[in-house]
Amino acid sequence: MQIGMLGLGRMGAGMVRRLLRDGHQCVAYDVSPQAVEALVKEGAIGATSTKDFISKLTKPRAAWMMVPVALVDRIIADLAQYLEPGDTLIDGGNSYYKDDLRRAKELAAKGLTYVDVGVSGGVWGAERGFCQMIGGETSVVKRLEPAFRSLAPKRETASITPGREHATSTADHGYLHCGPTGAGHFVKMVHNGIEYALMAAYAEGLNILKHANAGKQSREVDAETTPLRNPEEFQYEFNLADVTELWRRGSVVGSWLLDLTAQAMAKDPNLANFAGRVSDSGEGRWTVLAAIDEGVPAHVLSAALFDRFESRGQADFANKILSAQRYMFGGHHEKAS
Amino acid sequence: MQIGMLGLGRMGAGMVRRLLRDGHQCVAYDVSPQAVEALVKEGAIGATSTKDFISKLTKPRAAWMMVPVALVDRIIADLAQYLEPGDTLIDGGNSYYKDDLRRAKELAAKGLTYVDVGVSGGVWGAERGFCQMIGGETSVVKRLEPAFRSLAPKRETASITPGREHATSTADHGYLHCGPTGAGHFVKMVHNGIEYALMAAYAEGLNILKHANAGKQSREVDAETTPLRNPEEFQYEFNLADVTELWRRGSVVGSWLLDLTAQAMAKDPNLANFAGRVSDSGEGRWTVLAAIDEGVPAHVLSAALFDRFESRGQADFANKILSAQRYMFGGHHEKAS
Amino acid sequence: MQIGMLGLGRMGAGMVRRLLRDGHQCVAYDVSPQAVEALVKEGAIGATSTKDFISKLTKPRAAWMMVPVALVDRIIADLAQYLEPGDTLIDGGNSYYKDDLRRAKELAAKGLTYVDVGVSGGVWGAERGFCQMIGGETSVVKRLEPAFRSLAPKRETASITPGREHATSTADHGYLHCGPTGAGHFVKMVHNGIEYALMAAYAEGLNILKHANAGKQSREVDAETTPLRNPEEFQYEFNLADVTELWRRGSVVGSWLLDLTAQAMAKDPNLANFAGRVSDSGEGRWTVLAAIDEGVPAHVLSAALFDRFESRGQADFANKILSAQRYMFGGHHEKAS
Amino acid sequence: MQIGMLGLGRMGAGMVRRLLRDGHQCVAYDVSPQAVEALVKEGAIGATSTKDFISKLTKPRAAWMMVPVALVDRIIADLAQYLEPGDTLIDGGNSYYKDDLRRAKELAAKGLTYVDVGVSGGVWGAERGFCQMIGGETSVVKRLEPAFRSLAPKRETASITPGREHATSTADHGYLHCGPTGAGHFVKMVHNGIEYALMAAYAEGLNILKHANAGKQSREVDAETTPLRNPEEFQYEFNLADVTELWRRGSVVGSWLLDLTAQAMAKDPNLANFAGRVSDSGEGRWTVLAAIDEGVPAHVLSAALFDRFESRGQADFANKILSAQRYMFGGHHEKAS
Repeated sequence: MQIGMLGLGRMGAGMVRRLLRDGHQCVAYDVSPQAVEALVKEGAIGATSTKDFISKLTKPRAAWMMVPVALVDRIIADLAQYLEPGDTLIDGGNSYYKDDLRRAKELAAKGLTYVDVGVSGGVWGAERGFCQMIGGETSVVKRLEPAFRSLAPKRETASITPGREHATSTADHGYLHCGPTGAGHFVKMVHNGIEYALMAAYAEGLNILKHANAGKQSREVDAETTPLRNPEEFQYEFNLADVTELWRRGSVVGSWLLDLTAQAMAKDPNLANFAGRVSDSGEGRWTVLAAIDEGVPAHVLSAALFDRFESRGQADFANKILSAQRYMFGGHHEKAS
Repeated sequence: MQIGMLGLGRMGAGMVRRLLRDGHQCVAYDVSPQAVEALVKEGAIGATSTKDFISKLTKPRAAWMMVPVALVDRIIADLAQYLEPGDTLIDGGNSYYKDDLRRAKELAAKGLTYVDVGVSGGVWGAERGFCQMIGGETSVVKRLEPAFRSLAPKRETASITPGREHATSTADHGYLHCGPTGAGHFVKMVHNGIEYALMAAYAEGLNILKHANAGKQSREVDAETTPLRNPEEFQYEFNLADVTELWRRGSVVGSWLLDLTAQAMAKDPNLANFAGRVSDSGEGRWTVLAAIDEGVPAHVLSAALFDRFESRGQADFANKILSAQRYMFGGHHEKAS
Repeated sequence: MQIGMLGLGRMGAGMVRRLLRDGHQCVAYDVSPQAVEALVKEGAIGATSTKDFISKLTKPRAAWMMVPVALVDRIIADLAQYLEPGDTLIDGGNSYYKDDLRRAKELAAKGLTYVDVGVSGGVWGAERGFCQMIGGETSVVKRLEPAFRSLAPKRETASITPGREHATSTADHGYLHCGPTGAGHFVKMVHNGIEYALMAAYAEGLNILKHANAGKQSREVDAETTPLRNPEEFQYEFNLADVTELWRRGSVVGSWLLDLTAQAMAKDPNLANFAGRVSDSGEGRWTVLAAIDEGVPAHVLSAALFDRFESRGQADFANKILSAQRYMFGGHHEKAS
Repeated sequence: MQIGMLGLGRMGAGMVRRLLRDGHQCVAYDVSPQAVEALVKEGAIGATSTKDFISKLTKPRAAWMMVPVALVDRIIADLAQYLEPGDTLIDGGNSYYKDDLRRAKELAAKGLTYVDVGVSGGVWGAERGFCQMIGGETSVVKRLEPAFRSLAPKRETASITPGREHATSTADHGYLHCGPTGAGHFVKMVHNGIEYALMAAYAEGLNILKHANAGKQSREVDAETTPLRNPEEFQYEFNLADVTELWRRGSVVGSWLLDLTAQAMAKDPNLANFAGRVSDSGEGRWTVLAAIDEGVPAHVLSAALFDRFESRGQADFANKILSAQRYMFGGHHEKAS
């Protein structure tokens, strides 16, 4: 089938390549002419403007956007000028599902349909395939299915789950129509919320291993410092590159994130290239917001999120308050380090 | 080589089978004669008592224990009667590494050596191979290496980590001498601490998906109930069996634990056979204790641990206090449900 | 001055009484004629309908609402029919500050002003005075000041803060114009977020004291149960009524919430009248939402919130997932209790 | 009665003064002769060495130690040389209750008794009175009661708790025999665990108020930055000195810690003298360890503890891991700030 792809960054370009590989026709557009040119060489039809992009698509059009969240609304407004009833806009970025609900309603008024696709796989998607969580009207999702299937990993990229040998769900192929508008990004949102916590689990655990030599450091004897009661129990110097590699085989904590962690550790077990100011890109926040709205606990997911905020110095004032309180009731002065 | 295995539960028996498969000699003992008998049929040498078990081992003996933590000390005391200088005791259970330090010291006084092996892989180990984290004296660990290698998964059970193509570490084969006494169980302890948090990450996320239909339920209008501001945003009914299956291909959250979760969901997405009283078997607790002793934060790992305590009703009195406080300052009466 | 009070529950009635005591005129209305009647006997002017209520107020009117959050919008819509430009609506309930922003804008279009007042003090306010956090236009807040001052505790209800001996802020009297529309409820929201965590701090701590006898209970020896390593260290039977009373004098943790906790404990240290299903009334949730929007960590406040959700069984499905996972990888069966 | 006081820092000296004020006899010793001299001028009997200190006490002796935790054991060893059967050592510092259990046993072998006293009140104790949590043998505690009562705040320093008008417990006077050896420090330990969380509750809440102007700052538009959806909702500039003062009257969150916070804010609402590296002095850690040993959840208390570790940079390596993982799967580069 034919798909228009707007936004040819690492993920968008990777998608075009997977679609071309399966014989689909792709119209490709990006604000960078170089990005367009590169894909034209690989068989895509290039576009020079959003208008040109839309004009090169066959009705009913399928225009897929792979752009930063903050730009989606203005791009929709731009494209909507040229689209016609029956056309479909697909948002494959990390939009908030609440925006999906609003957009679908606005576009419906113009006879346009909107499909939200949460895409996981990062920069590896071109190679591994893109895991797609899809929301929208059934008939439209059905029409786009050949594209979803080509973008998705193949079924054989994972073992068959016992009990699903004869499953007819597309989930076993790496894409799923999760429900009505917003369902795709809702599932992707929670996916990322989980991702934050998985990452934090490894990070905290490895940090504990890293400090297992705490007994080798001398501590001062004063009222401000808690003595380590049994320094002889904390004399270990672990090789974290080896440990993360070890866990990749046969252990309960094996995962793709562990594979990547082992790769990073293989390069430099001290991770000296990283300062540790950890960004968050929205979904982790929205996951916790959803938990709160639903009234369900999220101790672990929220802790992972807040640790990221804390890594960026956002608790500084709170910490000053604690020091001030300690000074007030106990005359405790902050230690230099 | 020859290994004596004491404790022929699922893990111990699986180990014997893997050792026999690779041509090692195994002396097998268990309090259950049936368990011994079964392995004798597969080629093991059976023992009828701990004394008989030790007598059938060739010096320097290697006696491997796979028994519940609470029994290890008394079994060591029992075996030590029959062991001779140069012999080695291996604890493959989930002992606290602080006990390893004590035991190694006690046994050294008798000329015996002690090796601690944290084993991950659960009931699947016989098939997947056992991931082994090993602590103890280098020479002794070296001597036992043929057994470790046979028990471990093969290198090819995971892809080669870029940068480790020519790695000489045994980590790439699924077993690792992590350091001196206790190092094996220390790494295994943290492994399990991470495991708890990985599990909790999926559990919390899927719980949020499960309650994404919160807007369909009516809520009462009273001062005790927070109204859901936008019920129309929580109208989703997700198929969690499909979602967990979906994430197994191409997504960032793929893992062995997710594979198992998908299997459980494939059987019954409502998990009606489980009541949700979640046990913890020690390592998760000790991981947080270690974090505290080291003075490093463990927001995520501790939250996962405490949620297990909470699932068993251990916060009940705390919750009564909260209700009592609310009643005292606000006259709030508890709602029936 | 004259104030109209709509909603004569415990807080609203207490406010009317404090206002009357200081010589203000009060027009009182409630859907319950008995509630109106009671205050008429104490000097208030009774109203029989919202229309009657408004008609009995002198222009520019000041109509203060003390009603459940979920009813505020429809009451505003009702009152707005009868109000005239220059009149002021005051919301003294626990509204979300985002609703304040919307309402102030809507009412401004009709020439009406809106003041949001976060009120703390619960059922004790009539006696202790009401702590008021106020948001809105300066001129309007100024006009209402005599009422705020009468409702507030007196300055002498707390010691003078060193450095504030000559402070001119009304904060020292127990009411404060915190900023423009929404500022009052924003500060009140965070106040309650803090309140949840203060309560949880005592609840968790007292729960730890309650279980300090853990070493007296026998635990089973099996792979599902973590043995208590040193039962002799957990043999304490604390008298929690005495402990909470003790802390009220001279300790660092003294507080009004502790006073109330001691009162509850004095009645029944087992709190047998409470089941421990803890409600939350919105502000705790919104506080965490605000933290997330601002990108600042709230580990403690969110934990207190999530514990309330957990007390109401909202983690049940998550816990089933954990049990299912444990069964899948380790063959662990749930223990009966 | 007569009390020997060893350690004349702020707390020890304050205790001597309160004892002298009530007519008790005090033998005072400190490594600093100036500290001794100062109290001799106020009526204490000075000692020049530990031997001299003991020799000046009347049998059965009562020697009270107010020294840093890390020094207690060596001081006990020193004093024990000179003490005689029937004498009592009192540890008024912040010892771990597990050390109390050990010491009491060791001293009992010499016919000495040991009393553990958890003391709250900080540098304010001399003025407010010292809240004392006491553990030890009933007869010995009984004998020392006149001293405890003089050190404690008076009953009238707090209102009478309804239901305790005729209470005979000393708790209402600010001191309590909590149970056998260790009970005093156990209760004090949990007291401090609660204290950490109370402090954190205010700190987090005030930090949220501080950042309520988040909408005024511009944020970059890129994939690494979560856009603030509604900047117009975060335009508040709160006066935190006023807000903390406000809450001191009539609100639910009033407390002594809030009083101190308001004092600190009155001096400098930006707390510019503090860097925010928050120490912890043991009890907060031990409280969480106790919770884990008992198997009861402590989400809030542990979060407060871990935030302190985090304030001192102890999560740095964990954060680097998170950044490394993000780089590996998404090609995300850390932002400069």
